[in-house]
Amino acid sequence: MVISETRPDIESPIRSKSGNSKLLSISWWFKPLLVNRLGSQKHLYSSTWCALALNGFKINYSKYHHNAMSLSAIAKPILYSYWRSSCSWRVRIAMNLKEIPYDIKPISLIKSGGEQHCNEYREVNPMEQVPALQIDGHTLIESVAIMHYLEETRPQRPLLPQDVHKRAKVREIVEIICSGIQPLQNLIVLIHVGEEKKKEWAQHWITRGFRAVEKALSTSAGKYCVGDEISMADCCLVPQVFNARRFHVDLRPYPIILRIDRELESNPAFRAAHPSNQPDCPPELPNK
Amino acid sequence: MVISETRPDIESPIRSKSGNSKLLSISWWFKPLLVNRLGSQKHLYSSTWCALALNGFKINYSKYHHNAMSLSAIAKPILYSYWRSSCSWRVRIAMNLKEIPYDIKPISLIKSGGEQHCNEYREVNPMEQVPALQIDGHTLIESVAIMHYLEETRPQRPLLPQDVHKRAKVREIVEIICSGIQPLQNLIVLIHVGEEKKKEWAQHWITRGFRAVEKALSTSAGKYCVGDEISMADCCLVPQVFNARRFHVDLRPYPIILRIDRELESNPAFRAAHPSNQPDCPPELPNK
Repeated sequence: MVISETRPDIESPIRSKSGNSKLLSISWWFKPLLVNRLGSQKHLYSSTWCALALNGFKINYSKYHHNAMSLSAIAKPILYSYWRSSCSWRVRIAMNLKEIPYDIKPISLIKSGGEQHCNEYREVNPMEQVPALQIDGHTLIESVAIMHYLEETRPQRPLLPQDVHKRAKVREIVEIICSGIQPLQNLIVLIHVGEEKKKEWAQHWITRGFRAVEKALSTSAGKYCVGDEISMADCCLVPQVFNARRFHVDLRPYPIILRIDRELESNPAFRAAHPSNQPDCPPELPNK
Repeated sequence: MVISETRPDIESPIRSKSGNSKLLSISWWFKPLLVNRLGSQKHLYSSTWCALALNGFKINYSKYHHNAMSLSAIAKPILYSYWRSSCSWRVRIAMNLKEIPYDIKPISLIKSGGEQHCNEYREVNPMEQVPALQIDGHTLIESVAIMHYLEETRPQRPLLPQDVHKRAKVREIVEIICSGIQPLQNLIVLIHVGEEKKKEWAQHWITRGFRAVEKALSTSAGKYCVGDEISMADCCLVPQVFNARRFHVDLRPYPIILRIDRELESNPAFRAAHPSNQPDCPPELPNK
């Protein structure tokens, strides 16, 4: 994974190291190469004629180009992320597990009252929250929707089991966390609840949710949340355990949750996605 | 759809109209018939020997039976539902659209402090909320996970588009509603917020979410939320609009949401799933 704090502007000319730019005009004869790069024909079907830049060639769109195919389809995905956001974290884990290279564009949820509320970012994500993912020429929002998209377009290292009942179990645990816990202890909700009450509030909802997660895991867990393969449920569980610790939730009643969290601690994909390894993590934080 | 308020106890003897009971012992020779009834072999693979009752035959499990195959696999699905619960409502719509017959087991979220909190129901759904669905010998919880399960096991009348980007858009709208709006105006949260503040609280989060939904719909909607086919997004939108009206949210800024809601009002699957058409809807309610 390569992390960059700057978003490459894919619509501006890209120059080779020598400073020269070259124009590469291509037509349908170029399709097989693109298909090979993209791993799928889905993004190409309605493109008629275009010019593409790869590795230093100048970018030039034809007037005939329309948006089903764009250069962003072959650009490295950009993840709008905040180091401590558990929803961004889920997607970072999924991207890492599937070994999809991506750049990070940090959006501070704190600075200037929250960069997620500025007009420019509202165009990216009308919910004014992270994550958002620019990939294959599209901007996707909502972490579980993004994980499903990655699963459907990049089937390598699956995040859902083959068995339909195990898939339901994965999605059940995902939904308990992503609908039943995290939205209630989200930063924007805690601001609304107020400084004085926010710790008790967060503890209350995390505790209620973790009771249900622990019960679900008692019949589904193997090495991980559902059996012995890492799934979307694990991508959601680990960031939620981190949040529970932030709010000093007593985790002793949840031995299965704690065991799985420990199991995943040393996994390279999870470690690279951890808040403390993000480019926007403040260096001075003691428990970053 | 046939609605019954009583849950058939599939483990007690079922008698034919004449009062006689007959024992039907079957072994693997019976499998093709069962496969035919189930439409899939998935539920049968680990059953070794059993006795089954169909249409008045006495039920008798063999001691060799284990849980991968159970009578509930061929029983009519049972939906634990509350008439006004928007999460139950989503699943009712999905079941109706796919024309899956089911029985309703009403769980009152009001009576005796909430039947969802009793020990018996906690075994069904450890989150102590509706819906839960008993289907194919399994108990599923969490509405979006249930809709995905139905989609994967009953592909008739799809709730997700074929196109992978449209699928992402459907799931995005689903997640804005199911994680970004509904959990924050859920009954249990409003009780915690308190009688005095609950209306303002619910209005605040619904308004925030609907702004984002309207923006998403501005690029995705056709006749319905995503294009011209009804999807999971529509199953989630309609109950959320109902909730918005309950809390007197000003809906005028959301013309696309209102148009789609109106469009679906007369759809038979949506109409049958409406709170006012549920067996547990109190008859005295003026705006039921």
